[in-house]
Amino acid sequence: MSDDCIFCKIIEGDVPSYKVYEDENVYAFLDAEPVSKGHTLVIPKEHVDDIHGAADMDYMWEPLVKVSNAVKDAFGAEGVNIAQNNGEKAGQEVFHLHFHVTPIYEGDELDITYNRSSLESGDSVAEEISEQL
Amino acid sequence: MSDDCIFCKIIEGDVPSYKVYEDENVYAFLDAEPVSKGHTLVIPKEHVDDIHGAADMDYMWEPLVKVSNAVKDAFGAEGVNIAQNNGEKAGQEVFHLHFHVTPIYEGDELDITYNRSSLESGDSVAEEISEQL
Ligand SMILES: [Zn+2]
Ligand SMILES: [Zn+2]
Repeated sequence: MSDDCIFCKIIEGDVPSYKVYEDENVYAFLDAEPVSKGHTLVIPKEHVDDIHGAADMDYMWEPLVKVSNAVKDAFGAEGVNIAQNNGEKAGQEVFHLHFHVTPIYEGDELDITYNRSSLESGDSVAEEISEQL
Repeated sequence: MSDDCIFCKIIEGDVPSYKVYEDENVYAFLDAEPVSKGHTLVIPKEHVDDIHGAADMDYMWEPLVKVSNAVKDAFGAEGVNIAQNNGEKAGQEVFHLHFHVTPIYEGDELDITYNRSSLESGDSVAEEISEQL
């Protein structure tokens, strides 16, 4: 638990939230600024800033899938986006690891845009990443 | 394995890819249309269309974290976005479960935009999702 972390306070019950799911290790609740109806955050109860310190948290997986299923089914969404941002530069606002689970409905427009290029030669790129593993 | 699935073909080696990581259950390789240098996809070897059929695939977690660490470190990224889309409406293009791991660098602009609203009363919304769990 981190004293100045809003999500730790939510888990402790010191800040109110709309709880969607809870188990021994994981908590899920509605995002206070939803992108769409049912936008849910899935977080570990143990405070870690982001994905980089979370290698041993595989207990996150099953709740993440289950919540994604429930978010899809609750209001008949057509699709679900899962997003998880690490670092201020990447758009992270609260520095307690969290997954956004966002349903998208018929008639909604997808707000995610990507500037994609074409992979020319990936050999050295793949190698440099592999070397970190 | 699904016969008409490009990612199954990549896993089998029938379609070439720039491999970043491989273990018994998981494969990771460079996206052919990268958003940024080091953009990597992490996929299960077993074919499932999307997250909704993946409740028992918690072996995905640790490779996902490790690849995220490696993608960040390989070229000194400032942040990392993880994204996973389910359904055509949500922007899914290949119907084999995959996580985008996308580094973002100093000077890059984040292309992800969200139209956020404010949560008025989430009581019934949280309840309806919980009931699916
Ligand atoms: Zn916290
Ligand atoms: Zn496949």
